[in-house]
Amino acid sequence: MIEATIHEMGQRARVAAQALSLLEAEEKNAILLAMADGLRRGSEDIISANLHDVEAAQTKGLSSAMIDRLRLDAARVESMAKGIEQVATLHDPCGEILSDITRPNGMRILQIRVPIGVIGIIYESRPNVTSDAAILCLKSGNATILRGGSEAIHSNKAIAAILQQSGASAGLPADAIQLIPFTDRESVSVMARMDRWLDLIIPRGGKGLIEAVVSQARMPVIKHYDGICHTFIDAAADREKAVRISLNAKTQKPGVCNAMETLLVHENAATRILPAIVDAWRTKNVEIRACEKSLPLISGAIPAVEEDWSTEYLDYIVSVKIVSSIDEAIHHINHFGSHHSDCIVTEDASAAQKFLRSIDSACVFHNVSTRLADGEEFGFGAEIGISTDKLHARGPMALRELTSYQYRITGDGIIK
Amino acid sequence: MIEATIHEMGQRARVAAQALSLLEAEEKNAILLAMADGLRRGSEDIISANLHDVEAAQTKGLSSAMIDRLRLDAARVESMAKGIEQVATLHDPCGEILSDITRPNGMRILQIRVPIGVIGIIYESRPNVTSDAAILCLKSGNATILRGGSEAIHSNKAIAAILQQSGASAGLPADAIQLIPFTDRESVSVMARMDRWLDLIIPRGGKGLIEAVVSQARMPVIKHYDGICHTFIDAAADREKAVRISLNAKTQKPGVCNAMETLLVHENAATRILPAIVDAWRTKNVEIRACEKSLPLISGAIPAVEEDWSTEYLDYIVSVKIVSSIDEAIHHINHFGSHHSDCIVTEDASAAQKFLRSIDSACVFHNVSTRLADGEEFGFGAEIGISTDKLHARGPMALRELTSYQYRITGDGIIK
Repeated sequence: MIEATIHEMGQRARVAAQALSLLEAEEKNAILLAMADGLRRGSEDIISANLHDVEAAQTKGLSSAMIDRLRLDAARVESMAKGIEQVATLHDPCGEILSDITRPNGMRILQIRVPIGVIGIIYESRPNVTSDAAILCLKSGNATILRGGSEAIHSNKAIAAILQQSGASAGLPADAIQLIPFTDRESVSVMARMDRWLDLIIPRGGKGLIEAVVSQARMPVIKHYDGICHTFIDAAADREKAVRISLNAKTQKPGVCNAMETLLVHENAATRILPAIVDAWRTKNVEIRACEKSLPLISGAIPAVEEDWSTEYLDYIVSVKIVSSIDEAIHHINHFGSHHSDCIVTEDASAAQKFLRSIDSACVFHNVSTRLADGEEFGFGAEIGISTDKLHARGPMALRELTSYQYRITGDGIIK
Repeated sequence: MIEATIHEMGQRARVAAQALSLLEAEEKNAILLAMADGLRRGSEDIISANLHDVEAAQTKGLSSAMIDRLRLDAARVESMAKGIEQVATLHDPCGEILSDITRPNGMRILQIRVPIGVIGIIYESRPNVTSDAAILCLKSGNATILRGGSEAIHSNKAIAAILQQSGASAGLPADAIQLIPFTDRESVSVMARMDRWLDLIIPRGGKGLIEAVVSQARMPVIKHYDGICHTFIDAAADREKAVRISLNAKTQKPGVCNAMETLLVHENAATRILPAIVDAWRTKNVEIRACEKSLPLISGAIPAVEEDWSTEYLDYIVSVKIVSSIDEAIHHINHFGSHHSDCIVTEDASAAQKFLRSIDSACVFHNVSTRLADGEEFGFGAEIGISTDKLHARGPMALRELTSYQYRITGDGIIK
């Protein structure tokens, strides 16, 4: 029953995707504005649906952090509506000409950006993803099949219904945004195998969810595993920049993927710079797990164990290692890192170049905090996630990364 | 044992990929030229290894077509060597700047083309793929793990050994090109699950092989399912172009993926144009499977059955269907086609635009034979395959499609 229902949704999404691909930017923008308006008018309905979810979460004894992620109030609904208006102002990437070649036989080959088709989004507790993901897919001309977590099912249904109704009034094709009514694991498996109707799956959530999708998916998956981000203080680092960046990367918002987890320090910079960094961290009560060499330099540090080098703390905890060369730093990062975002602090341009070219990560920074690895900071105007994959989309993903391309070839009776 | 061996190869390939990513274009070209030279000097060794494979194939009673695909002679080895020299002349896509943005806070974001990393190529009987695939990966800075079919194992080993040795003499990093010595199904499964060491798998072969990879792979797969290509003769088609293109698309080389399998004819063009197309096909003894409406117009045609619309004949066979509108043609192609290459023949510019925008295929043609869907014809100078996927690479794939990108961000102590 679950399988048949989801397959039917997929088939209908394919029809919707065809209609969506033919909409002009202005038509899509009018739909988006109607949706923002719909969310505002439906704010009370959304909040009362959300209350069911919050009460159920409290009964189940979920943590207060989980419940906070789940909760919607008037300000959060307004923020979703504003998010939609913001996406309406963004440039529509579809129709962009990526290349335009005329061959000696007169054949003209246009490579044009087009929507991907149907995108499946699988996510966990935050109900605002229902709106955020659907509208980015819509703006880029894609149909979406959403599958949210059980904790937020009432909120998700209310948001999806409002997006569908208010969108339809402004010309949104039927079935362009669909929410799967099931929240069990089987629905994830069905989606992952449904390559006939889904062109792409984006799982947004913990490792268990991502592993379930990766191990079963027959279609492309764009995922974000973890963010084990490094800051490397080179021998030629400026002390003030090193302190400022290390403090910011670790403590400005430690619970996110682009926060620093490991500080690497060149042995020739350790006594000059490390104590100042440690002092800065102390002001934020950062717990420090130090390698053998750095342990004597950091009072109160805990000895780091092997596991620390591959741990994403997402907390006020950091591991520190002294390395004897930039090559050791590069090797450490490529081996233990998660290929997300890594930074070198140095005034030596050739060391910076070497680092940027050698680190196999989506974003590599020179004298810039890894916290800047973000679609908004990059000027994308939106972000659907940060890909730690290398195919199709790498790093911050926005509208452009939700498109494919097509070759349109014209001639006057050309044959081979 | 197989698993441990292949994982070790993967780990070594990762190290090689790092070294390859730092090579300049001239260094890679020098390696390629040394390899071409190596193949020429080793031609006799390759041919004598190939003789083992050919004799085994004859003993097994393989078809003469299969044996022909397998056989290498001096001309074919020379052609592999020439192919390498040709790739050496191509532009190296790595290092290309895809975007260059400076943000208001002074942060400069360069998006730079970089190699993907380690690419697995799984292929069947043609031994020349060993060289063709490895050199395209090498030129684009990637390490390769090759897994060829059992029929060509002696040939593949000889070719790989020569590429490795002659490449090494010109600076090819160790383990940049590795051939898996196993040819059983398990080696495919091991590769498909080895996402830690393989960034991409490209299966080249029949549906059974592709299905085995797609159903098991944990990493991205770029594949080519089938080529069910259509030519649509619009009401406003020019008769001479319709005949020329239909003859070429069906008969110039019927055994390849971009050959036409189904002809759709607008009912208002049927009596004016279809008989002339049929007459042209007759000169090549094309077997015609006709829909109910077209059957009376084609003497000697066989009635088409439902299955014909989704069959890739790869032979002198074609299915013909009369449609009552361009919308019916578009619907038929999107429903039964394989999203590879489809053509409209028309003098009506708005019909052409509608067709090009509405067909969900990698290549859509207006008054050009689908046989032109090809990396060489597109001016790519090489081709590793034609992707029927929509993510990362769609349509003819060459060097550019074997790359990823990385964001390199510089600033002067920027924090969030």
